[in-house]
Amino acid sequence: MSRAFNFSAGPATLPEAVLRQAQAEMLDWHGVGASIVELSHRGPEFMQVAAEAEADLRALMSIPDDYAVLFLQGGATTAQALLPLNFAAPGQAVDYVVTGHWGKTALKQVKHCVAANVAANGEPGGYRDIPARDTWQLSSDAAYVHYTANETIHGVEFRDIPDVGDVPLVGDFSSSIVSEPLDVSKFGVIYAGAQKNLGPVGVSVVIVRRDLLERAGQPRAEILDYRAHLKGESMLNTPPTWNWYLAGLVFKWMLAEGGVTEFAARNARKSALLYGVIDQSGGFYRNEVAAAVRSRMNVPFFLHDEALDKPFLAQAQEAGLISLKGHRALGGMRASIYNAMPEEGVQALATFMRDFQQRHG
Amino acid sequence: MSRAFNFSAGPATLPEAVLRQAQAEMLDWHGVGASIVELSHRGPEFMQVAAEAEADLRALMSIPDDYAVLFLQGGATTAQALLPLNFAAPGQAVDYVVTGHWGKTALKQVKHCVAANVAANGEPGGYRDIPARDTWQLSSDAAYVHYTANETIHGVEFRDIPDVGDVPLVGDFSSSIVSEPLDVSKFGVIYAGAQKNLGPVGVSVVIVRRDLLERAGQPRAEILDYRAHLKGESMLNTPPTWNWYLAGLVFKWMLAEGGVTEFAARNARKSALLYGVIDQSGGFYRNEVAAAVRSRMNVPFFLHDEALDKPFLAQAQEAGLISLKGHRALGGMRASIYNAMPEEGVQALATFMRDFQQRHG
Repeated sequence: MSRAFNFSAGPATLPEAVLRQAQAEMLDWHGVGASIVELSHRGPEFMQVAAEAEADLRALMSIPDDYAVLFLQGGATTAQALLPLNFAAPGQAVDYVVTGHWGKTALKQVKHCVAANVAANGEPGGYRDIPARDTWQLSSDAAYVHYTANETIHGVEFRDIPDVGDVPLVGDFSSSIVSEPLDVSKFGVIYAGAQKNLGPVGVSVVIVRRDLLERAGQPRAEILDYRAHLKGESMLNTPPTWNWYLAGLVFKWMLAEGGVTEFAARNARKSALLYGVIDQSGGFYRNEVAAAVRSRMNVPFFLHDEALDKPFLAQAQEAGLISLKGHRALGGMRASIYNAMPEEGVQALATFMRDFQQRHG
Repeated sequence: MSRAFNFSAGPATLPEAVLRQAQAEMLDWHGVGASIVELSHRGPEFMQVAAEAEADLRALMSIPDDYAVLFLQGGATTAQALLPLNFAAPGQAVDYVVTGHWGKTALKQVKHCVAANVAANGEPGGYRDIPARDTWQLSSDAAYVHYTANETIHGVEFRDIPDVGDVPLVGDFSSSIVSEPLDVSKFGVIYAGAQKNLGPVGVSVVIVRRDLLERAGQPRAEILDYRAHLKGESMLNTPPTWNWYLAGLVFKWMLAEGGVTEFAARNARKSALLYGVIDQSGGFYRNEVAAAVRSRMNVPFFLHDEALDKPFLAQAQEAGLISLKGHRALGGMRASIYNAMPEEGVQALATFMRDFQQRHG
């Protein structure tokens, strides 16, 4: 088929203009006689790509100078494993706020080396809401407080930055980074796998307040040490150049489209449209998340009759709307509508959902 | 320019046919309406890509069933850091044979958690030869013996598999994997970053004898645990799908070209041609590595007069021969001639080198 509207949760749809540019440059990048994926990461060509990517991300997110930006391999889960190694002393307390599947995964990566405290846990409520800030049981001496800004599977999103006092706040922004303006200065660390809002899978971004890099952390290999990565300009070993390059193209596309303010407006319209269709369906479609914390990025929903799931997915695919099946942990449907999903894609889905209800309601 | 002959040490040149296929499929993979980089790693499309990549690599390398094959992020350096965590008890002895820059890097990743013993060290001789096997000081109780099959910077290559008795042998094959037939059954672990002979940077391959995965190792995060990666089919977190896919295309290309036996013959001819030009230049060009251990993959060489380096590189580039500058640790020139470098590329370089000598000799 021609290009479908792809609602995959990640790896997710990329801007078509970015894919077309990568396609055009695939055999010969800027006339050098080779693809960017075939060139040395330390050569002038890729060093320029890397420098522009960092500068563009800094511009997009208004990242202050006292924050370092790293482009690394391993994804968000590896970043989760490196948090205590880099920022907590052996056995020190760390606080985790768990509001979905990925918060739980983050916690799993650190238990062997620190005193991980679950300060708040949305699991008893099926992760349909975020525990109120005044119920959180924070440690007095925590190395950091970790939370997941947007839960991709459960569709739960913090709509403001939690206040945790002077303890460094660590945010997993894998699925909502650059989707709206964010005050980076409120954070100790922001990290994100790229495959939702930043570009292709295979590269991750870690934004870290520089003073935290002076912490001793725990015994670890050089390649697991953020200080060493900063000193090595994220090129301590050969970095994933193609992925980094493609993320850089996405940053330029976002800047050209108007930056995070523009995307915040588009994302608000897109998510409002979808939740509207669901809420106005009289129970034909159902989203169970508390209205105040519904995700603007991932809209999980259920059909009132499970027997309709298969025809819904099949007919959606025929209509050019793909990857709508929900995560196996939750079932049902999920529409992921990151920055690269155009408004016309969400409009097409909304129309399809209304039509499907008429045919099967 | 049109496609140059690219002698980059890694990221390195890729088969043009593979790049053309990736280019053609960039916006729509096999008619699904999206690029492979935009699809879920757990969806049927990518699961098929992953399964074929493993099957093809197993066929290429004749990997026995009692070996697991993992496709992971992080590159060879991360693999080096994970070796002791997965295969050695805290403080246990591990033996390292250091024959160049990368063996030294491997050692640096493990010192904090095991008793790393340098069993042999080529550094005093400037890494121009490999210490004879009967001089190695192996520990009696080592968890494993590590060596670097081919040193990319120093151009030193083991031409046979060292006998280390019953202790598992761990080989870094980043720059020589699938360049010739290899008896995998002689190894405990073979690992390789992909960016030289296997495909693009951003994915690495770890081939591990399954019984070694039963070792307790050291306390570590799940994402740093090879057992967990095996159980999760190398999809414990979102894997670098595009990189994995491109490596899979390279495997299919290698099989279609005749497999490792054919590439062994081509690589022997290519390296013999280059060393011949150097050795017959009467000292105009110089390679300092002992003849018996000269690398078939990376040919470092020096011009007799450093003042000729710049004109050599400039005129080579004009002739469509790029990325010949040596690593900064060694200086001089380096021609990396992995599987994807066609024989005509090496012939063009040989002709250029002879002509350059005539003009400047």
